[in-house]
Amino acid sequence: MGDYRQMWTDLDLDLAKHDELLGILGQVYTQIYLAQKDRPEGMKYFDFVVSEAHGLRIQELQEHRDKGGKVVGAFCVFVPEDVTMALGGVQVGLCAGADFAVPASDGLIPSKTCPLIRASLGFKMNKTCPYIQSSDILIGENTCDGKKKMFEIMGEYHPTYVMDMPQKKTAASRDMFISELKALVVKLEAETGRKLEPGALSAATGKLEAKKAAIRRLNKARAAKPAPISGLDALLVSQIAFYDDIDRFTGKVNELADELEARIKEKKGAFSESAPRLLYSGTPLPLPDWKLFSIAESLGVVFVGEESCVGSRYYTTATPKCDGSLDGQISAIADRLLGTHCACFTPNSERVDDIVSMAKDTNADGVVHYNLSFCQTYAAESVKVEKALKKAGIPVLSLESDFSANDGEQLKTRLQAFVEMMK
Amino acid sequence: MGDYRQMWTDLDLDLAKHDELLGILGQVYTQIYLAQKDRPEGMKYFDFVVSEAHGLRIQELQEHRDKGGKVVGAFCVFVPEDVTMALGGVQVGLCAGADFAVPASDGLIPSKTCPLIRASLGFKMNKTCPYIQSSDILIGENTCDGKKKMFEIMGEYHPTYVMDMPQKKTAASRDMFISELKALVVKLEAETGRKLEPGALSAATGKLEAKKAAIRRLNKARAAKPAPISGLDALLVSQIAFYDDIDRFTGKVNELADELEARIKEKKGAFSESAPRLLYSGTPLPLPDWKLFSIAESLGVVFVGEESCVGSRYYTTATPKCDGSLDGQISAIADRLLGTHCACFTPNSERVDDIVSMAKDTNADGVVHYNLSFCQTYAAESVKVEKALKKAGIPVLSLESDFSANDGEQLKTRLQAFVEMMK
Repeated sequence: MGDYRQMWTDLDLDLAKHDELLGILGQVYTQIYLAQKDRPEGMKYFDFVVSEAHGLRIQELQEHRDKGGKVVGAFCVFVPEDVTMALGGVQVGLCAGADFAVPASDGLIPSKTCPLIRASLGFKMNKTCPYIQSSDILIGENTCDGKKKMFEIMGEYHPTYVMDMPQKKTAASRDMFISELKALVVKLEAETGRKLEPGALSAATGKLEAKKAAIRRLNKARAAKPAPISGLDALLVSQIAFYDDIDRFTGKVNELADELEARIKEKKGAFSESAPRLLYSGTPLPLPDWKLFSIAESLGVVFVGEESCVGSRYYTTATPKCDGSLDGQISAIADRLLGTHCACFTPNSERVDDIVSMAKDTNADGVVHYNLSFCQTYAAESVKVEKALKKAGIPVLSLESDFSANDGEQLKTRLQAFVEMMK
Repeated sequence: MGDYRQMWTDLDLDLAKHDELLGILGQVYTQIYLAQKDRPEGMKYFDFVVSEAHGLRIQELQEHRDKGGKVVGAFCVFVPEDVTMALGGVQVGLCAGADFAVPASDGLIPSKTCPLIRASLGFKMNKTCPYIQSSDILIGENTCDGKKKMFEIMGEYHPTYVMDMPQKKTAASRDMFISELKALVVKLEAETGRKLEPGALSAATGKLEAKKAAIRRLNKARAAKPAPISGLDALLVSQIAFYDDIDRFTGKVNELADELEARIKEKKGAFSESAPRLLYSGTPLPLPDWKLFSIAESLGVVFVGEESCVGSRYYTTATPKCDGSLDGQISAIADRLLGTHCACFTPNSERVDDIVSMAKDTNADGVVHYNLSFCQTYAAESVKVEKALKKAGIPVLSLESDFSANDGEQLKTRLQAFVEMMK
């Protein structure tokens, strides 16, 4: 890692606190990721990306800004990165997945709020997230009550714009969402000083679809027995999708998929063929929330898919074909996003169907439904997910946790019992 | 009370469980309400309404249904009762404010859900709410994550229709809301077998405005020193607003307001002139959630206003004038509802202004911000409410609780300390 201290100082990071964070991340990554056996060679690139997540990638963002480009921070798959790209911007995810930042949100947002939301705000407050510090603007969205209220608070500390979300999928809701996307375009045009051109947008959507196709290809390979890649490694790729340079990332994911496809032919796995296979379903596992996967995989179980925003809800729905006009493209983007089966919608029965299909398609032996504490929408849906999976004869375990290490033993015990029961 | 057992049986109530509920309610009402001193004479009517809430009023609803009218159950001020009325329906609130029904929601909705939502569902499950049993249809609304997901579950047990809510107040959101109101009209027309006529709607809106004006008049009287009515009694009137026959209720509230205005001239109060005065602000206190008010008023403190759905968010915003066409009237209803400063909207800074104004207008010495546990929107807003009130020099106490009696002593201690501090 190079010397980035001047850059971090310029970004107004709290250097001492940030050193502390990097120290923890490095240690955890070594223990969880580098200790894995039989990893694909292609993971070396992603290891490198993690090691330079606060260094080289941030330097790239600054170089982009030095050339007049804008950085747009976002928390959600509903913020269309192709629109940002078409306006010459780079969209990045923000730091969210670590207990480290949660206490810094105390007094600003109730403690009975999901840890992802608390950490998002905490990372701004304790000045340890170089992504938020690099963001010229944050784009929020009303996907849940917790985020909706968090963005009001965040707006006091960082330029923030919030996009409204419909909660039903009626024609009126679609019209409203299209209007909101158009309002977002106006906002981002003002921010970037550019005009959204149909050609640039279709090129950007094309890049996004190529990226999603690469991730889909990688995930398809996981259906093989033995699983050619660990759940931890596949999850990492989905996490990095929110941060890395899009063309480089797409290339590296395709290289990794080539390798996995070759491994499948050789019957070479990251786990043995008899390893119990689990589908993950639930709330996002943002970087670096590796707790559940590392506990499960240390028990010899392998995760073979993620029905999650960091997973299938990001890469599944393709942008529908359209007439190429700006209006047509924006409507197509709305339809792509409204095809995302998030628990923010009601009813959201398509999500239950997705989980059952994914469990079958990935040859999973069971499903772990997991939600972050105080996430009301996913916690509530766990009841109907359990019901549907039981009906389909697929074992299911519902868990709730946060980013802290406190309940590690408890999770381990419950996972062990679940795996025993599946046998 | 007459013999309503046959009616309750016909409504498929669980008679034994329902007897248990009525026993508790009767005892609590006697202890809390009938034990009060210096009550206005006009409260006798409301005592009668409570005593007949599961009897005479339910009989009236059945008579209405026998004549071919429909009963529409609703949980929220955003469901326009004038539309229901104009279609010959009667809209009623549903049972929600009692710990009694909470356990019956176990296993259907997560325990980390607001007790109001859990009780709403619990009252359906344990078959003790004659209002839900009398409702031909329930109209839900997406005002929070908890209710949004609860309605999905409720829909499995009772005919339920959900109206979408915008979360911002842009032009696009208004259009969407108008479309949703029109879709609701179509649904209610099908349910009632009637066509919504402009004349009937404007007459119904007129009745609703007369009802709200009566409640406003009553609440205006509370600004006097000494307060001519207890907070408990005034709260009860706001609670009954969701259940009683509209014309009778409006008349009785105006009679009570006459009496309060006479009391003010005589300087006759429900509490002494020196009693500390509090404004309530926060989540709804649905019937029979009298816990906070009874604890506070037993300490000699008087509540002089409620910034709440059961309170000012119900009666404040009048329906704007319009051209009288159906479209014009529906847009006016949308504007009335979008003028409701609910925490479901973002940003919702008007609510903070309302609280500061109400504290001044009611001559309050302090504000109690109260939210039901796990209500993320109001809990999150408590931070900015506290900030604004402190800036305005108005003492504020934030409390969180549920419907159970468990934390009574704790609430008492905190209220006592707050009142001491205000002196």
